[in-house]
Amino acid sequence: MVLIPLLQQKTIHDLLLIFDLAGTSVFAISGAMVGVRQRLDIFGILMLSFAASSAGGMARDLLIGAVPPAAISDWRYLVVSLAAGTITFFCYTFIARLRTAILVFDAAGLALFAVAGTQKALAYGLNPVTAAVLGMVTGIGGGIARDLLVAQTPAVLQRDLYALAALAGAVAVGLGHELHWPVVSTAIAGAVICFTLRLLAIRFGWNLPVSGVKQPDDADAANIRR
Amino acid sequence: MVLIPLLQQKTIHDLLLIFDLAGTSVFAISGAMVGVRQRLDIFGILMLSFAASSAGGMARDLLIGAVPPAAISDWRYLVVSLAAGTITFFCYTFIARLRTAILVFDAAGLALFAVAGTQKALAYGLNPVTAAVLGMVTGIGGGIARDLLVAQTPAVLQRDLYALAALAGAVAVGLGHELHWPVVSTAIAGAVICFTLRLLAIRFGWNLPVSGVKQPDDADAANIRR
Amino acid sequence: MVLIPLLQQKTIHDLLLIFDLAGTSVFAISGAMVGVRQRLDIFGILMLSFAASSAGGMARDLLIGAVPPAAISDWRYLVVSLAAGTITFFCYTFIARLRTAILVFDAAGLALFAVAGTQKALAYGLNPVTAAVLGMVTGIGGGIARDLLVAQTPAVLQRDLYALAALAGAVAVGLGHELHWPVVSTAIAGAVICFTLRLLAIRFGWNLPVSGVKQPDDADAANIRR
Repeated sequence: MVLIPLLQQKTIHDLLLIFDLAGTSVFAISGAMVGVRQRLDIFGILMLSFAASSAGGMARDLLIGAVPPAAISDWRYLVVSLAAGTITFFCYTFIARLRTAILVFDAAGLALFAVAGTQKALAYGLNPVTAAVLGMVTGIGGGIARDLLVAQTPAVLQRDLYALAALAGAVAVGLGHELHWPVVSTAIAGAVICFTLRLLAIRFGWNLPVSGVKQPDDADAANIRR
Repeated sequence: MVLIPLLQQKTIHDLLLIFDLAGTSVFAISGAMVGVRQRLDIFGILMLSFAASSAGGMARDLLIGAVPPAAISDWRYLVVSLAAGTITFFCYTFIARLRTAILVFDAAGLALFAVAGTQKALAYGLNPVTAAVLGMVTGIGGGIARDLLVAQTPAVLQRDLYALAALAGAVAVGLGHELHWPVVSTAIAGAVICFTLRLLAIRFGWNLPVSGVKQPDDADAANIRR
Repeated sequence: MVLIPLLQQKTIHDLLLIFDLAGTSVFAISGAMVGVRQRLDIFGILMLSFAASSAGGMARDLLIGAVPPAAISDWRYLVVSLAAGTITFFCYTFIARLRTAILVFDAAGLALFAVAGTQKALAYGLNPVTAAVLGMVTGIGGGIARDLLVAQTPAVLQRDLYALAALAGAVAVGLGHELHWPVVSTAIAGAVICFTLRLLAIRFGWNLPVSGVKQPDDADAANIRR
């Protein structure tokens, strides 16, 4: 009887690690590709790899007080993201041709990060609502950091159903925790929800609504920004 | 006799909460309006609402070690900022017409955040100078995050007497703490100072000086940025 | 016998402080100069001074859990960076003429920050690899924050051998720690390595490679960014 919780703890821990490393490599590629396109040097490209793969998790860890964040204290994250960035630097043209594969892997990475992020927040004793928000942050934080570092408005804020897919998966995990569902099946369910939703959004070009207001004028603008 | 400090503690706590929630809703509106103008989708708009209303307080909480920050651990902040963002999304044209009201409420929000931020830093045992700086950060941090998320230089760095009003209110609270003035009256005094200063700055178009240097050339620029 | 570790502790502490304050003033000048060129007001300029001089150290302190960060809890950092910013505001033309001196001092600041940052991370019990990465972050973080605050892609990501010099110095300190070399000589060696490498890079125009890919097209771009 005593073994079950122990086993669960071990399983959760292993799941977290594998999910995190897999997501890390996919996101690192997306960071490196933006870096190449923006004509950054190799250091800048590796920095964007690391930011894209780790900024979400680091934000989560800082917010829950898990310092130093796993992304810098565990050398595996660093190695995986730098390796993915280096490969992208040397094989950009080849990787850029794999459009569909990249989109699918990115959806997988998003699902893995959202689920792992929510679980880690729950493991630190946060309530399910906050944990789900932090799971979403884990999923989208890297892309936000990547875009901000090249001085662009993050893509996730502008179009596409991306953050919402992450949030849906994260909420499923939070809900499962609240209802005492088995951890592993909850994690799988959450990841499948996020992954499916994201692929459907890509396939059917789903977007969230923008405001119907036409060209708010500059007089407004000056006012509003303060 | 014992009751007085207890009552004070309670009063401080309640004041902090009410100030924070009132300021949260006003700043969330400013974030949502920038989001609408920048053609973000509804998720991006809500994200800007949350960033504008909570980034200052979250920065403060991270810097004083109060993790997880109130903005994410207390669901009321999340609900208030998302509600304000949603209303702005649907009623942009109406809200944009309320220019003067928005400016006045924003000044009130700034005053509330600066005072509440300073008090929280003092409650965590920081010295009054640091606490005042963190009070100012609480007041202006949201606006900085909002502008950076749409890849613009923060308005607060460029013009207008905004940060200085926040700092003046925060310094008053820090000073009152140092001189053992009653907490509630100090808070009110600080808020009034910040609010008044900000309204006067709007009314009379006060700005801080910019450098008199004319168009520093690009050769300089390359040098200076490294 | 007991005195030696005590003396070492004291020496390390003093070294950390002096290095930090010297680097702080140099970096504050670089921040203020960017602020002047970007037509920020005096508050914005001082904010950039503070960000350029302290963001790297604050990021390091947040990541190792040293809160509140020294940059805000120790008034000396604040005073030094605001003083340097104010002097730059009033003497921009004069300071801008000192191109070579600024580059040399900036190289010195980088060396000091990288070494002090690594040492502080080691003092908090981090492993040498992570500590070296945090040393580099301490050195380059201020410049990144400075450029992001004016909505530009950080210079350190784009060209020049800057971050690598910081990393080399930081790695030397981490290595010396691992091999139990004397702390002071290790620090000096690390600083000399970083400083020399940086000066050589300036003198000979060393740059890191960028990708050979020519103008990745926009169809790619849309895909990659999401």
